[in-house]
Amino acid sequence: MTTTLEREIQEQPSSLARLIESQQNAVTTAARAIRAFAPDYVVIAARGTSDNAARYAQYVWGIKCGLYVGLATPSVTSLYNASINFRRALVVGISQSGASVDIRSVIEHARSQGALTLSLTNDASSPLAAASDHHIDLSAGPEKSVAATKTYTAELTAVAMLAAALTDDPNDRTAIAQVPAWAAQTLGLSTGIDAAPFTYMPNFAVIGRGYNYATAFEITLKVQELCYVTGSGYSEADFRHGPIAIIQPAFPAFAVAPSGATLPAMLDLLDKLGERQARRLVISDSEEALAKAEVRMPIPHHVPEWLTPIVSVIPGQVFALRLAHAKGHSVDQPRGLTKVTVTR
Amino acid sequence: MTTTLEREIQEQPSSLARLIESQQNAVTTAARAIRAFAPDYVVIAARGTSDNAARYAQYVWGIKCGLYVGLATPSVTSLYNASINFRRALVVGISQSGASVDIRSVIEHARSQGALTLSLTNDASSPLAAASDHHIDLSAGPEKSVAATKTYTAELTAVAMLAAALTDDPNDRTAIAQVPAWAAQTLGLSTGIDAAPFTYMPNFAVIGRGYNYATAFEITLKVQELCYVTGSGYSEADFRHGPIAIIQPAFPAFAVAPSGATLPAMLDLLDKLGERQARRLVISDSEEALAKAEVRMPIPHHVPEWLTPIVSVIPGQVFALRLAHAKGHSVDQPRGLTKVTVTR
Repeated sequence: MTTTLEREIQEQPSSLARLIESQQNAVTTAARAIRAFAPDYVVIAARGTSDNAARYAQYVWGIKCGLYVGLATPSVTSLYNASINFRRALVVGISQSGASVDIRSVIEHARSQGALTLSLTNDASSPLAAASDHHIDLSAGPEKSVAATKTYTAELTAVAMLAAALTDDPNDRTAIAQVPAWAAQTLGLSTGIDAAPFTYMPNFAVIGRGYNYATAFEITLKVQELCYVTGSGYSEADFRHGPIAIIQPAFPAFAVAPSGATLPAMLDLLDKLGERQARRLVISDSEEALAKAEVRMPIPHHVPEWLTPIVSVIPGQVFALRLAHAKGHSVDQPRGLTKVTVTR
Repeated sequence: MTTTLEREIQEQPSSLARLIESQQNAVTTAARAIRAFAPDYVVIAARGTSDNAARYAQYVWGIKCGLYVGLATPSVTSLYNASINFRRALVVGISQSGASVDIRSVIEHARSQGALTLSLTNDASSPLAAASDHHIDLSAGPEKSVAATKTYTAELTAVAMLAAALTDDPNDRTAIAQVPAWAAQTLGLSTGIDAAPFTYMPNFAVIGRGYNYATAFEITLKVQELCYVTGSGYSEADFRHGPIAIIQPAFPAFAVAPSGATLPAMLDLLDKLGERQARRLVISDSEEALAKAEVRMPIPHHVPEWLTPIVSVIPGQVFALRLAHAKGHSVDQPRGLTKVTVTR
């Protein structure tokens, strides 16, 4: 029996292809406006899964475009009615539904102050889309599962497309065009993932860094909301600072360790996790990293590091789906959750 | 037998009094420079406990001073060598030791770009202090425990002092002068905290919002590093979005719920946690909130909401200390941790 969640995970290559094809004009227009406005900095308002897409944007727009990107603290305006000076900012709202009241209030407040505003939503007629100067439609088709999967990878891809439009580097455009194929390959490589041995895991950690800091948080969220197991996402740098103390033998530690600038530190951490006899679940294209894994979760070779988060989350989505099945949970109706929350 | 950690927790009223008295001039000078520079936004670089002080600054400087405050992503510069435009920013480094290489690299990079820079450290002769235009000495005296306690409340108080110097509101100054007395009262109110019933808790959550979002994260970190139990800190708004699915009967859920703007939503969440039969540990001055608690953790009345994080973390520190004792752990030598990490 195929669940809605599984179908939506499998739809990712086609939904990403649709996004890349249909939104190129909207992205180019937004990039032109951003270049003209020349913001001093960028602020992103988002919650839940979309907040993890915002974390990705911090690295992509920072590293490729030289922009400081911070996350909004929506309560500052929505709860405390503070008036923040956003005059020289690009303020971006990311929300699957576009219905969250506090995300919209950040955008409306910023726009009233003269900020340039942009929204990414999966509903072009949503209040958030209407409230912002520019809008990119995630084009993922209706997402019915409470756990967001195809809209998350669409958010990452939209963020990457905007970076490519800002750098105007044809290599970036060419790389993005291959994302749907890489997503399809990753799904193929993930067919063997067996979550059953982890049915009774009491908790877990997911560790990433740099571009894949976002991936660590997003995999944590998927496992939490689908499997009702507590866990935390960590930056590899923070993890050494204190949380490594929680590692006991057999503790499930996911490491997002693709080739690139973060790999040497991740390899070192994998050794430290091995010394503590953690159960290492490694998401990587690097044979050196995968060789240290108790559970291998390969991703395709030759994906540029900055685009790896779009594929590296997929083995985590598949793991969360299968663990939920192994535990006998209904993935399409997680208990106590609603798809759209309208935080005020 | 008194441990070093317990002594440092108990020292907080005197260390905060020393900070408030000795650093008023440094704070006033920094505030004058900030007013003259008129930054478009603020970026804070910090890791671990200091990152939680940065979360507090996002709310205090945002709400009281109208400044957008974002957290740095140090890896963007330290790992990817990106050049970020920090020209119009106030960039602040917060670090107990002042020795972390990647925090200092953010400050140095920002200063070279023309940003105004400020550091908060507990060592006035540290490299981070030397690298920044202005410095506030946390004046907490040597902190020997690996788990930071007195330097955390000192960081929060320094952040509050700077806000008061920027608003130039005499009420703010008067309120800050009472912080050491409120900290002493909170320690008195915390003597009855009994963590023993939680000796075998497999995991936990700490929920706060607004000013006390930082407190939720800091209590999580203390319990994790001292007791080796996994848990997560959450914004009350995010918690409803998905993580609430993890709540099972008897699940330990800490709620930081002082009087103020966040209380109505926190009261509602406490009811939802009650419906799911969570074990609610409530940090509050509100009788209505405490009445919903299975474990009461009172804080003094009449602390202005914006200063509550300085006292509301204390019951969490005491809980973490006692839980570690109940589990038979050595709090002065947590396994696998070092006090100063020099992340590159």
